[in-house]
Amino acid sequence: MFLSKLFLPLTKDLPADAKIKSHQLMLRTGMIKQSAAGIYSWLPLGFKVMKKIEQIVREEQNKIGAQEMLMPTIQSADIWKESGRYNDYGEEMLRIKDRQGREMLYGPTNEELITEIFRSSIKSYKSLPQMLYHIQWKFRDEIRPRFGIMRCREFYMKDAYSFDLDEDQAKQSYNKMFYSYLHTFKRLELEAIPMAADTGPIGGDLSHEFIILAETGESNVYADKNIFKIKLEDYKFDNNSLEKMRNDFSSYYAVTDEKFKKEEFEKKIKKENQILTKGIEVGHIFYFGDKYSKPLNCLVDHPDGKKVAVKMGSYGIGVSRLVGAIIEAKFTNEIMKWPKSVSPFEVVLIPSINKNNTENLEKALKIYRQLKSENIDVLLDDVDENISAKFKKHDLLGIPYQIIIGSKSEGDNLEFKEIGHNAIMQTLNKIINTIKN
Amino acid sequence: MFLSKLFLPLTKDLPADAKIKSHQLMLRTGMIKQSAAGIYSWLPLGFKVMKKIEQIVREEQNKIGAQEMLMPTIQSADIWKESGRYNDYGEEMLRIKDRQGREMLYGPTNEELITEIFRSSIKSYKSLPQMLYHIQWKFRDEIRPRFGIMRCREFYMKDAYSFDLDEDQAKQSYNKMFYSYLHTFKRLELEAIPMAADTGPIGGDLSHEFIILAETGESNVYADKNIFKIKLEDYKFDNNSLEKMRNDFSSYYAVTDEKFKKEEFEKKIKKENQILTKGIEVGHIFYFGDKYSKPLNCLVDHPDGKKVAVKMGSYGIGVSRLVGAIIEAKFTNEIMKWPKSVSPFEVVLIPSINKNNTENLEKALKIYRQLKSENIDVLLDDVDENISAKFKKHDLLGIPYQIIIGSKSEGDNLEFKEIGHNAIMQTLNKIINTIKN
Repeated sequence: MFLSKLFLPLTKDLPADAKIKSHQLMLRTGMIKQSAAGIYSWLPLGFKVMKKIEQIVREEQNKIGAQEMLMPTIQSADIWKESGRYNDYGEEMLRIKDRQGREMLYGPTNEELITEIFRSSIKSYKSLPQMLYHIQWKFRDEIRPRFGIMRCREFYMKDAYSFDLDEDQAKQSYNKMFYSYLHTFKRLELEAIPMAADTGPIGGDLSHEFIILAETGESNVYADKNIFKIKLEDYKFDNNSLEKMRNDFSSYYAVTDEKFKKEEFEKKIKKENQILTKGIEVGHIFYFGDKYSKPLNCLVDHPDGKKVAVKMGSYGIGVSRLVGAIIEAKFTNEIMKWPKSVSPFEVVLIPSINKNNTENLEKALKIYRQLKSENIDVLLDDVDENISAKFKKHDLLGIPYQIIIGSKSEGDNLEFKEIGHNAIMQTLNKIINTIKN
Repeated sequence: MFLSKLFLPLTKDLPADAKIKSHQLMLRTGMIKQSAAGIYSWLPLGFKVMKKIEQIVREEQNKIGAQEMLMPTIQSADIWKESGRYNDYGEEMLRIKDRQGREMLYGPTNEELITEIFRSSIKSYKSLPQMLYHIQWKFRDEIRPRFGIMRCREFYMKDAYSFDLDEDQAKQSYNKMFYSYLHTFKRLELEAIPMAADTGPIGGDLSHEFIILAETGESNVYADKNIFKIKLEDYKFDNNSLEKMRNDFSSYYAVTDEKFKKEEFEKKIKKENQILTKGIEVGHIFYFGDKYSKPLNCLVDHPDGKKVAVKMGSYGIGVSRLVGAIIEAKFTNEIMKWPKSVSPFEVVLIPSINKNNTENLEKALKIYRQLKSENIDVLLDDVDENISAKFKKHDLLGIPYQIIIGSKSEGDNLEFKEIGHNAIMQTLNKIINTIKN
């Protein structure tokens, strides 16, 4: 892609309500544009990042055997009346009347709808366990949407649901999701800590939030830094190992304000191991047994002949929110660096362009074609602008690798830079190897 | 994937309103489930097909230089008041009041919103031409939703928008989309005919519908069969060749009832060349000049100094609708065959399973692992069911290739069948080559 062709409206004028750095950076680099209060359009750069995050979430869900499907955004109020949540949910639910006067709503979450689908599809324990997920837009009519896409009204979320015959098996499903989440965040180069949490409006008796550390986060985090000694690769994908994984994480102190008690923290954790920082919630998982299957009459035949309500859990990851969360975690001192797994481009070519001398641009074009032939997704900055302005711009765009075509690049040796490291001189073949890892 | 694990609620009980074959087949094979009137959930099998169609649409849009982004589903009524369509649109628009009492709506189309994004982003002719597209859920509150996902309320659509400085350039963008659409439908193995059309509520002065032929279609089609002699590969992706392509298509008679005149048809087209059949609209493209850019004040600087309203077009493909359209075109005599490009699986393994004899299942498992190691997306029918029931089921599921592990398969030679052809005996290596093409 040539930068001059990319639909990328960079801006310096920030609205007064852009108070946090992810909101600011996303506007400055033309990733999003507000279309209404708390409702955003995703412009090509932001869209690419979000799609890459979505794909990683999807792959890690598929790996644990969850099956993808898709529920609609607009739901009937009827099933919410069956579960009893229609009145409870309050004003955050966007309620709609269609032209026939039927009560509808824009789904803020999908426990009711998935339970309704399940109860009319699955009748026997033989078809259990099942894990289903979808990645879909949701709407919560926040009274005061803020922080850009971090606390907006229309947001993109992966939500999964597990269905098991009994609590033991349901907890195995829970542990699989626990494992999937940690692998997902790892691929996003985020340090995510699972923390025991209250269950809130979803309900149930077992729940974890996944919090990533970021100094600008919304919640205070209190943790024992030994929790980072746990290595994901030490656990296998079997029930015992996954149970041990969850127990190992639970054995370390890690809470937000919700569960924080100062004396306990001071007493249990040595001073030098205390982490006091901030964090951002990027995932939340729940086990809630038959909270929905019972009122909605979602029953299966048990091997011993009777009918039992399936035991369910639900598992959310904020896909659009993760775009902002990554920025909060990775953008410091006016320099952004996207994790390679979700960067909008793999590498940017930055030729120094002088009027009346197109040599650097021509050289860059040649390299561009070579990189394309290697299936590398490269951005060529062909804009006629001075080189220091270009560098500042690319510090914000955050593409992790840069090839700079200026006075230093000579013959086969090119100036190659990974953001956060010094530039080095390297041949194109070596650069290609580095990019491809 | 093992069929016994796949969330695939097959059903024989069809609701009375399932009158057309795509609606029936999608319910019978557990591709969709109705969640409210005209609103469907996509179960794993249907979801996979839709995602593959989406990906082909995306690739063909990217090939012509359109850039993907994403607009939200919920829009503010304000921009629709600016364009003057808010009152005109009528009851098909799902109108919503949020908790603050603001007038919102669920987007039925996006001309206003994209124009608003464009006007605040692009100021100069130097940034033109631009083509932007997104693939997003839309809602039209049909008074009588019917025919399953063919005429539903919440539907998935690709809509693209072009922005040009003048009418000549805008028509070049129009021709590029024309080309992209024909290539898209070709990859879906559909015979699509572009037909000059009225512009309807979108407006404008140039418009084509893309109609695929299907005996059960909603519109009557009258055409000169010589139109099928046009070969896509005869045209290059340059402005002259694309102009010629559109002219060549336009030179053959091809209309729906809207523009049909019996005498003209009889007079112009020789009897033996007359096609009288039915068709389904799967795409619609429009050039409408400054119909939206003018009222919304979407201006750019012209090279000669003045400001001019950009010239726009819009281009839709019904992604969810295509799933049904393909079934209408391909499902005959109780046998479905998915185009290979969008089939939910590439091949199905059908072992004949007898109680007390797991030999065929074990053999199938071994082949399953070999196919997986070749990255072939294979479904193993491990369900304990008699072989003739299996065959009937797979006639409906429509996976184009079958490997049958029964009495005929011996040693290295396997019974291999492509739907619509006779079974042949073939080695696994040859089968793998055939599947991979």
